Amino acid sequence: MATPLKRVTEESAIRERVESLARAIREKDVDALMAHYAPDVVVYDLMPPLDVQSAADYRKNFERWFSSMSGPIDYEMNDLRISMSESHAFSHGLGHVKGARKNGERVDYWVRVTTCFQKANGQWLIGHEHVSMPATM
Amino acid sequence: MATPLKRVTEESAIRERVESLARAIREKDVDALMAHYAPDVVVYDLMPPLDVQSAADYRKNFERWFSSMSGPIDYEMNDLRISMSESHAFSHGLGHVKGARKNGERVDYWVRVTTCFQKANGQWLIGHEHVSMPATM
Repeated sequence: MATPLKRVTEESAIRERVESLARAIREKDVDALMAHYAPDVVVYDLMPPLDVQSAADYRKNFERWFSSMSGPIDYEMNDLRISMSESHAFSHGLGHVKGARKNGERVDYWVRVTTCFQKANGQWLIGHEHVSMPATM
Repeated sequence: MATPLKRVTEESAIRERVESLARAIREKDVDALMAHYAPDVVVYDLMPPLDVQSAADYRKNFERWFSSMSGPIDYEMNDLRISMSESHAFSHGLGHVKGARKNGERVDYWVRVTTCFQKANGQWLIGHEHVSMPATM
């Protein structure tokens, strides 16, 4: 078992990763962003298809999103919660996205983000991510 | 570190829980279903609002869904993957829902399901769940 101090230090490592992800989105820095993902990450992304089966394909989604937006993206993670062991961690929170599309349209919406980390060779990497909005039926 | 045998046994415990959840959905057995959730589970559910903050509120969503459906629900979990440590596990898979609403309308759709478990007092409980469809914009 980890000591309480170790747990706090480890949790801050995950918190820093989540903050680093948010910063990379704001700066539209795809390389900084993708450094957090395992090559075989499985993603349930905001837009179709149902699932994305690799970091290479997830990268294309970010590139498409970033290139559709004019200037930096205003992105903040709210209500972040982290739960973890020595080797596994999951975080979830509500992402608030604001900005402007290149066609001039303003966007302002919320997404739900669940991120599952695994530690391998001393490095935390994301093995699964799930991003969504509630369905409108 | 767990021995490989222990890991396999533990993973089968999570797999059984996921199968038990699917069976409870098929049988519309809310009590069997809710036995898997921590009281303070945070859920990002298929339908609005953005988040659900307790098992009591999540139960209401299941009750509403089950009462809207005629007879049992045909529900199968596909492409299930599990990753876990001694105290934390996450699973994700694609749920296929088929059935009929009480108004006679047939339904046949897929949802993405991410489930995060924590072990407390020797018992695996769900601390977070995220269910969604890709957005249609």
